Amino acid sequence: MKTKAKGSVASRLIGLADLVIEAAERGKDPTINIPVRALSNVKFNEARGIIEMGANKQARSFFNVGMAKKFMQTMLVGDALAELQRGELTTSLREIYYRAKHTLQDSHENTFDNQNESDPIIEDLEVALAALREELHVRAENAGTIVGPLVLVDDGDRVDCAKMGKGGYSVPSIVEPDYVEISKCTADFVLLVEKGTQWNRLAEDKFWKKYNCVLLTGNGQPPRGVRRLARRLHDEKKLPVYVLVDNDPWGYYIYSVVKQGSINLAFESQRMAIPTAKFIGLSSLDPETYGLPRNVGIKLNEKDVSRAKELLNYPWFQKKPWQREIRRMLSSGLKYELDALASKDFQYLTKKYLPKKLKDRDWLD
Amino acid sequence: MKTKAKGSVASRLIGLADLVIEAAERGKDPTINIPVRALSNVKFNEARGIIEMGANKQARSFFNVGMAKKFMQTMLVGDALAELQRGELTTSLREIYYRAKHTLQDSHENTFDNQNESDPIIEDLEVALAALREELHVRAENAGTIVGPLVLVDDGDRVDCAKMGKGGYSVPSIVEPDYVEISKCTADFVLLVEKGTQWNRLAEDKFWKKYNCVLLTGNGQPPRGVRRLARRLHDEKKLPVYVLVDNDPWGYYIYSVVKQGSINLAFESQRMAIPTAKFIGLSSLDPETYGLPRNVGIKLNEKDVSRAKELLNYPWFQKKPWQREIRRMLSSGLKYELDALASKDFQYLTKKYLPKKLKDRDWLD
Repeated sequence: MKTKAKGSVASRLIGLADLVIEAAERGKDPTINIPVRALSNVKFNEARGIIEMGANKQARSFFNVGMAKKFMQTMLVGDALAELQRGELTTSLREIYYRAKHTLQDSHENTFDNQNESDPIIEDLEVALAALREELHVRAENAGTIVGPLVLVDDGDRVDCAKMGKGGYSVPSIVEPDYVEISKCTADFVLLVEKGTQWNRLAEDKFWKKYNCVLLTGNGQPPRGVRRLARRLHDEKKLPVYVLVDNDPWGYYIYSVVKQGSINLAFESQRMAIPTAKFIGLSSLDPETYGLPRNVGIKLNEKDVSRAKELLNYPWFQKKPWQREIRRMLSSGLKYELDALASKDFQYLTKKYLPKKLKDRDWLD
Repeated sequence: MKTKAKGSVASRLIGLADLVIEAAERGKDPTINIPVRALSNVKFNEARGIIEMGANKQARSFFNVGMAKKFMQTMLVGDALAELQRGELTTSLREIYYRAKHTLQDSHENTFDNQNESDPIIEDLEVALAALREELHVRAENAGTIVGPLVLVDDGDRVDCAKMGKGGYSVPSIVEPDYVEISKCTADFVLLVEKGTQWNRLAEDKFWKKYNCVLLTGNGQPPRGVRRLARRLHDEKKLPVYVLVDNDPWGYYIYSVVKQGSINLAFESQRMAIPTAKFIGLSSLDPETYGLPRNVGIKLNEKDVSRAKELLNYPWFQKKPWQREIRRMLSSGLKYELDALASKDFQYLTKKYLPKKLKDRDWLD
């Protein structure tokens, strides 16, 4: 499924309303077919290296006691989304909830009582209309930062990310080409950094200048905008993407989501996942290689252990080096944060760890 | 207490070590006097309109069984902080913990077992050395965004915040004058927005252009960098600061911290607080004034009610309009989010609500 033009999303939304009108004219029950968003309808496409959605669909009809309310809600959310298209506006999940909420005439019944009723409907419409959230103009907060030798054009403004000091450009939630254009990029690779603190270290030390790379962070699990921007740099500028995370099950998971997408958002892997992304560390071998003392390791707790065992069973962690990586962490009984490199030296990350990793091409695939 | 020069912070840190050497030479017990960071030593300075620390101090000495470990820890943290000064580096609380952590020779005893041992010591040193965290080069993550008619100079780069599209400049954690210079600002006021979603609405609608203001957000409770930047715009450019928050006890609290500082960080009010900051809404009168339906209000829960009652007793909420404001919320039994304005129209905030508020000068002081 490819990204389609803006006009097309608007017309697909209008199509929802047309469907009801046509069914009414023909005396039929209006029905929408919605792809099933459940584990049963998700599979790992080994050839493409991404998590994908299957073909199962479920019908949602109006003349069905169990579905009537949800059908009505789907139309209300569709209406709010169409309003966004017409106005060329973006908004949040929460505001869509408020916009679509009314009290039904002559009753005390609300169309929606809670945002957890409207959020899944937006996801239904994403898959039913084959329009990604960003194309539906639904955004989250800005939640990432970028610096490096690249120029973006955002709303007509030329943003030179090589001239943003240590602060950087705040990555918007929606970075689709009609919002943010990558007008120039001379970097050799993208370094996607899990935590803001390491990003700050690297930005302060101008690591991106010396190693000619783009420094990108999402302050934790990278949000959609950050993942999408990394993917676009990969697609449009052919940049390899290296993921820098803590050595714990959460770090492995973050890497795997960047690489092949997530089960929950399987529908979006095609536009978010970067199947050739590399894991540049921390690896469970690094404490030995870089002489990190055991006292800066953190004991794995029960949750870590069970999560790591889950990861061992995922199809996308079946490669031998990955099995070794995860098992070594389990047998050491310790996890390590990137922050622990400071135990050697505040600039150890910039001056020793990453330079050696890059020189030795010491990463996992 | 005024901000002092960089060299001076370094010398104050070295002074810590000198104190031990001198005491040793004179056969005395080395002792540091640390101002008490507790509610008992905090007061509201009505005349200045800020929360301040009192003069109580506590001695921490080396030859005291109960204090020896803490004394040693204080020296280790002081040493790590001195290293930051020498290297002109910044780092995080967590990395200071790792840097200062070792296993004591010939023992299994660690200098620190947990970050919650080192964090309070950094706060001790802030107050003992009269050096703010930023001057000690301790940073957090970038956690705010700014756009508007101002030019900042960050690390030699000229950042024009009027040419940052909808994304904006990511506000660093440390915005002291030797890090970020405000080289130009032609705005008439600062709008400090609680939540990123409203900031995005305002940025998308180019509200800052039409109303000639700086748009600043910290995505929730504004972090230190955002508060400090607002304060500097207020001090150096004489801009009034308007705070836009939800109508709930949390919103009132955020406003009060921006205005007079917080009890926990009373020491920092002098450089963070903006005693003339105004509360521009949401006010508990607004649902009536702007015709918000009751169904977009959210029932106050027990915690909201008890928090609101606490606020009623704070000395800085004693003004009549504030007592009315809080009591009206309590008697309505409802709180309202700014997001609820979307129930009228996605652009209601930009096109109706804020323009009317500004025109009517409808704010609380």
